[in-house]
Amino acid sequence: MTRGEFDLISDCFAGKGGARHPFTRLGIGDDASVHRLAAGMELVVSTDSSLAGIHWPDDLPLSIAADRAVCSALSDLAAMGAEPVSCWLNVMATDAESVAQMGEGATAALARYGVELTGGDTTRSRSNALAVTVAGALPEGTAMRRDMANSGDLVWLCGRAGFHASGLHQWLTGEKDGCFVDDFKNITPLLADGIRLRQAGVRCCMDISDGLLQDASHIARASSLAMEIEMASLPGWTQLVDTLGEHVALQRVAYGGEDYALLCTAPEGVNLPFAVKIGRCFAGAGVTIRLNGQAVSVGKRGYDHFG
Amino acid sequence: MTRGEFDLISDCFAGKGGARHPFTRLGIGDDASVHRLAAGMELVVSTDSSLAGIHWPDDLPLSIAADRAVCSALSDLAAMGAEPVSCWLNVMATDAESVAQMGEGATAALARYGVELTGGDTTRSRSNALAVTVAGALPEGTAMRRDMANSGDLVWLCGRAGFHASGLHQWLTGEKDGCFVDDFKNITPLLADGIRLRQAGVRCCMDISDGLLQDASHIARASSLAMEIEMASLPGWTQLVDTLGEHVALQRVAYGGEDYALLCTAPEGVNLPFAVKIGRCFAGAGVTIRLNGQAVSVGKRGYDHFG
Repeated sequence: MTRGEFDLISDCFAGKGGARHPFTRLGIGDDASVHRLAAGMELVVSTDSSLAGIHWPDDLPLSIAADRAVCSALSDLAAMGAEPVSCWLNVMATDAESVAQMGEGATAALARYGVELTGGDTTRSRSNALAVTVAGALPEGTAMRRDMANSGDLVWLCGRAGFHASGLHQWLTGEKDGCFVDDFKNITPLLADGIRLRQAGVRCCMDISDGLLQDASHIARASSLAMEIEMASLPGWTQLVDTLGEHVALQRVAYGGEDYALLCTAPEGVNLPFAVKIGRCFAGAGVTIRLNGQAVSVGKRGYDHFG
Repeated sequence: MTRGEFDLISDCFAGKGGARHPFTRLGIGDDASVHRLAAGMELVVSTDSSLAGIHWPDDLPLSIAADRAVCSALSDLAAMGAEPVSCWLNVMATDAESVAQMGEGATAALARYGVELTGGDTTRSRSNALAVTVAGALPEGTAMRRDMANSGDLVWLCGRAGFHASGLHQWLTGEKDGCFVDDFKNITPLLADGIRLRQAGVRCCMDISDGLLQDASHIARASSLAMEIEMASLPGWTQLVDTLGEHVALQRVAYGGEDYALLCTAPEGVNLPFAVKIGRCFAGAGVTIRLNGQAVSVGKRGYDHFG
């Protein structure tokens, strides 16, 4: 039996996701949702598209793809140090069954992180895709930004780099049970770490979505400084080298996308016990990658949608 | 020469759209945008997807399609009575030229209505599409909702119904210069009318995106009442009948989508000189369409993406 659009939306989305948050005055179901922000708080908003064949392989189950799409959007809130409060979900689906599968994955991720689904739309599409918009809250003036690194700051990493790309490679080459595949299938937005970094006074942070080198370069450029990163300091570096060899490990860390680790900087003396020290900021420009102290060159660039 | 993703985004979006709004503390270019809401104000958020071949014909220029996509999203803010303050734009494009064309149309619409572009993303896609998320502001507790109509309220309309669907039909049948085609190509979000309705004390409003009958039914259901609408009272009704005949005119008004007129209700005695009185709310359920006082039956349903 064919379910109509409105029944389908009701079945797949209404009442799913996290519980009602005080931020929301009027939730899903009207022309728009209505929200109130607590005094002294700022709102942080990010949006990300995830498309079949572009952001996930066509043979990945749609519920997993949708879970990943929500988690990658939430990672941007982690990078700012925000507590997530709301999500609006655009589901573009080839058929009703795809709506149901993407709805299941997306709302499961929202429920896992306690994020309320406050709006969205569902439309027929030639190809499956989601656009996920998320909002978070944090105290005024405390958002961590890309342009707040200072010369002399140490560079820190929460989470690991290179593992997601290695899992994707295994999946695409048929090693569906490869040792890194779980790192590809499950994205973990480091929300608690982002909040701890902000509370520790960190002012500069971003999440690693386009590879460590490209994303470190964003901070270096926005903050007008140079950065050095020591690969041997990275969490999991030995495991990557042992499994992939040094050359591939370097490539995966520098240019592999979607790690969703948090890269941040802090003045010397700030202690971040839940992060790992991987480098330092200097006057100058550009990012230097070192391996056991020696500068190394890694040729390939990060992913470019229209390069 | 191929432009890279970041240059393309910079060329097509950075600094385009409306000017910086006080709502924004940190605009486009970081992991997320950061916002502060003035005391006593609430935030209204809506998101809409628009896809080639679904929401617009493939032979419509992409800049027009993107302009329409932004305007249809803004119409949801009009329906709530909000002043638009921010837009986040997901552009999904088959190639760089499509990014440029959609960017041009979307930012032109944002500039026309003074809405700041505060974030978004641009990705390669198998088919052109946009997801547009917009935010507006209004005084606490004043958002117009679907569930606030009361028995005895009069029903009012700002704008016209049936014209967009008639223009789309002309476009699809090759009458590219047809008399209604401009109503299809240009969507006008009735932002000023929405604010005037809210300021006049109207509590119940929605925009007509799925046809007058389907959308009136949303209000009737949400507010648990019945509604009667007199077609002959509609602005432009005579023009529709003269051009299309009564049967087609009825269909286009009742079920034609994307008119973006504002349908609202208000107690008897409230005067809305910029709107037209088209019906009345009663105890009961369902929506009755009348033509010159006689109840008429119109068989077809509104558009259903998965029906």
